[in-house]
Amino acid sequence: MGTIYGLGLGPGDPDLMSVRAHRLLTNAKHVAFFRKKGRKGQARQIVEGLLPENAIEFPMEYPVTTEISVHDPRYNELLSAFYAEVTQHLIELANAGEDVVVLCEGDPFFYGSFMHLYARLRDVVPVDVVPAITGMSGAWTATETPITWGDDVLTVLMGTLEQDKLTDYIRRTDALVIMKIGSNYDKVVTALKDGGKFDDAWLVQFATMGSKQTVTKLSEMTDHGTPYFSIVIVHGQGRRP
Amino acid sequence: MGTIYGLGLGPGDPDLMSVRAHRLLTNAKHVAFFRKKGRKGQARQIVEGLLPENAIEFPMEYPVTTEISVHDPRYNELLSAFYAEVTQHLIELANAGEDVVVLCEGDPFFYGSFMHLYARLRDVVPVDVVPAITGMSGAWTATETPITWGDDVLTVLMGTLEQDKLTDYIRRTDALVIMKIGSNYDKVVTALKDGGKFDDAWLVQFATMGSKQTVTKLSEMTDHGTPYFSIVIVHGQGRRP
Repeated sequence: MGTIYGLGLGPGDPDLMSVRAHRLLTNAKHVAFFRKKGRKGQARQIVEGLLPENAIEFPMEYPVTTEISVHDPRYNELLSAFYAEVTQHLIELANAGEDVVVLCEGDPFFYGSFMHLYARLRDVVPVDVVPAITGMSGAWTATETPITWGDDVLTVLMGTLEQDKLTDYIRRTDALVIMKIGSNYDKVVTALKDGGKFDDAWLVQFATMGSKQTVTKLSEMTDHGTPYFSIVIVHGQGRRP
Repeated sequence: MGTIYGLGLGPGDPDLMSVRAHRLLTNAKHVAFFRKKGRKGQARQIVEGLLPENAIEFPMEYPVTTEISVHDPRYNELLSAFYAEVTQHLIELANAGEDVVVLCEGDPFFYGSFMHLYARLRDVVPVDVVPAITGMSGAWTATETPITWGDDVLTVLMGTLEQDKLTDYIRRTDALVIMKIGSNYDKVVTALKDGGKFDDAWLVQFATMGSKQTVTKLSEMTDHGTPYFSIVIVHGQGRRP
């Protein structure tokens, strides 16, 4: 049987993927990746120029991304059917003895889409997950300031949470990462103000998930057209000699 | 002027360092690394066999590690003097036009020792930080279960925190990572029980920071000789289609 590889690509710069990921990728026969309909796909763009010429590509096109709320029951129905369908194709390939590399932005097990395939594949065919540098590691490195010192508590929040919940967690942590900003921008800003951390917050934007990062103090942001792949960072100030 | 590279090595498997880290390492002329007196050094062990034959090594030996409490004023004094001394040597090398690779376990900006050098070097000589896969990514990948789904809140705690504080953060999070276990093992176990997450907690031990990981349900642990580089993991159970 073939193996399905959940291949973490890291924060976007191909030079930051692991040696193991790079080797699997440059020898891949089958390459699967998620994308929005009509788009090239973020993960696919990261590996441009790295795949073997004769690699067989399997784009997995989401039936819906942000058009329907995740709380709408139709969202779950559509996504479930989609995951079942692409999983079936991957299982057929593995059963035919073929290895498949599934491209994953960031780290596959950290808020990743691959997890939805993994849950459906793991008891059926061999699956191997290759961890990677998270988008948040890429973001705090871009700020040129350490994220945590000593006993600092780090909290990772999604901008999709309710405002009160955001505020509460923001107030009680030392270091902070907020992801899934996009349309939640205003809510996140209010929560940061209420939680007393707005003035210390940075926004790292990945214009192309590649090297075109921008790093700005949130309080100095003028353009609010924040892409979904932005990350808010507040650095810890813990103990240090 | 030369550049000081803070080179993240990742969780221990050399195959999991980044392509960029691997390239810098295999071409390095000067290689610096922390170690405990009389030890080979964890970071140095990870790169065994990868350094050029004529690389000049600069072991930076901690004057003290766990012999004195971090809350003892002498700890800060000794460490400060140590960091100042090794920083001076790195600055001299950079001023002489030499690049130096400083080996860092995990990700340099995430609870790393390199940060103490970085703070002293960044305004004096060129410093370049290469992010890496964190030890916690290595740990949750080893459990073969995703750490976070949907809107899950992830909290990262140090076992060195007070028990009440640990319990409080443990109770209020969805997904959880606890590092610096070692001598804090009993306190961490009690906090996990009081916080209602003991039965869902896993312990990932890095026997050699290499591939010899062990993954155990915390409730099934028999040997309590937990090494310092153990990580406790509790997986989030958030929304999924």
